[in-house]
Amino acid sequence: MLDACLDPDMVCEITVQPVRRHDVDAAILFSDIVVPLKAAGVDLDIVPGTGPVVANPVRTAADVAALPELRTEQVQPVLDAIGLLLKELGGVPLIGFAGAPFTLASYLVEGGPSRNHEKTKALMHGNPELWHALLAKIADLTTAFLVAQVEAGVSAVQLFDSWAGALSERDYREFVLPHSTRVLSSISGVPRIHFGVGTGELLPAMREAGADVVGVDWRIPLDEAVRRLRAAAPELPVPVVQGNLDPALLFAGVPALKREVERIVGEGKAAAGHIFNLGHGVLPDTDPEMITKAVELVHAAG
Amino acid sequence: MLDACLDPDMVCEITVQPVRRHDVDAAILFSDIVVPLKAAGVDLDIVPGTGPVVANPVRTAADVAALPELRTEQVQPVLDAIGLLLKELGGVPLIGFAGAPFTLASYLVEGGPSRNHEKTKALMHGNPELWHALLAKIADLTTAFLVAQVEAGVSAVQLFDSWAGALSERDYREFVLPHSTRVLSSISGVPRIHFGVGTGELLPAMREAGADVVGVDWRIPLDEAVRRLRAAAPELPVPVVQGNLDPALLFAGVPALKREVERIVGEGKAAAGHIFNLGHGVLPDTDPEMITKAVELVHAAG
Repeated sequence: MLDACLDPDMVCEITVQPVRRHDVDAAILFSDIVVPLKAAGVDLDIVPGTGPVVANPVRTAADVAALPELRTEQVQPVLDAIGLLLKELGGVPLIGFAGAPFTLASYLVEGGPSRNHEKTKALMHGNPELWHALLAKIADLTTAFLVAQVEAGVSAVQLFDSWAGALSERDYREFVLPHSTRVLSSISGVPRIHFGVGTGELLPAMREAGADVVGVDWRIPLDEAVRRLRAAAPELPVPVVQGNLDPALLFAGVPALKREVERIVGEGKAAAGHIFNLGHGVLPDTDPEMITKAVELVHAAG
Repeated sequence: MLDACLDPDMVCEITVQPVRRHDVDAAILFSDIVVPLKAAGVDLDIVPGTGPVVANPVRTAADVAALPELRTEQVQPVLDAIGLLLKELGGVPLIGFAGAPFTLASYLVEGGPSRNHEKTKALMHGNPELWHALLAKIADLTTAFLVAQVEAGVSAVQLFDSWAGALSERDYREFVLPHSTRVLSSISGVPRIHFGVGTGELLPAMREAGADVVGVDWRIPLDEAVRRLRAAAPELPVPVVQGNLDPALLFAGVPALKREVERIVGEGKAAAGHIFNLGHGVLPDTDPEMITKAVELVHAAG
């Protein structure tokens, strides 16, 4: 998996596949959120059936100090892939990709995927100074990775904070927002999408981080998301949102899928713009035909 | 595990332990949400490291028709345990326990624990009639189990909808609320606690189901939960809530734990009553000393 993420031809091929097969309107760079950590020299691997496993979890001041910085040439294969993709995709936009500081910190502190993030939250609450030092280092690394992608020519970037929904808004604002803001505010010239799951409570804060587009999972409707974003920042323009089909609906048959797609397209009209997407990743057992069908239904409904 | 849940002496001993060791103000019946399914004759087992595994997942009309009803004598060991506990606990209240229809349905349909509940949601959206038939049968079974516990003498009941937070409010109201309402409205004479995780969006609906106490995980503060509950039902009395310490905080050291406990006790004063509790179960690696400490801190702060 990590080898594939650092092989330009492979990244190009896998990134183009959904465009070719499902006729989606944009491509998202095939990668994994731990790619820049691996490229910078962190000893980790993706274990099939488990996910990323970090050889030496980061828990002490010495561990944080030992975390490497990312030099752009270390992710050159990804940048080469972007070069190939710009030719291959023609006019189809390419969205860059990076993991957000909190989600990357969870992998580093826990040593792998975690359901409850207890070691991560223990560090956050028990040693806030060390926590902020860790997130600042990760933010630097993520920024370097995204800036390099923008310079290589991506049309937009997406910052994935997959686990942010495990936090209260209070904790998100105190322990995460400053660092995600540093990342997003370092990106200019392309739209910035900020993705999370279970983040209905965090949408205004995730916009404040400097997002042009806020991702919304399926737990709240897009019109309600827009209402919350507008209420929190009435001085800002009407927001743009991304989402929010439950990936489980791809298992429910075409009539149910059609109802949901049409509902979501309708609710998305409350936003200044709507990128139709799943509220989370494609689930492993999904029938690819249902993805093709979903894209058709979106195009027909839009 | 399931053998222990159906052994009266064992249930009594394990239920009393937290009272003895940590000085909590109430005991909750030691059980597992699949106990009434097992007792009724569903072929399932709890596999260490995995959780409940159902031999024949329930996915067709024939599967639903074949689901057994629960006869009270099938859970006699649990009722005997309650009898033992009433003597053993003296004046300490005993809270009864059952899984809610949606969460039990997820185990039955998926065949085991599921992160994304895709087969469950596929049935819900793809075949609503069969879905409602399934949930009605589970609601009958859960009702029979809880009514028997009340008759055996528990002081309150708690309905656990651990996975309800995977649903939007729309889906919860359409596909789950009628069935959880049937369960809770069948219970009289004791307070009814309705527990969920990640259910900040669902709190008013979970109260409407007939709950006297609504559980709140750590993602929103209790004063905000009370504000939402009051706004949704201004004609009802000020609500009673349960929660909402993040179980990860038991890993963060005493000073951080103390700050959080004091904050939560303060915010809980917005409610007409507050049962201090973790927002989710105790995590496996928790140091038991930290639980004792948390109870001390709650007593000192209250």
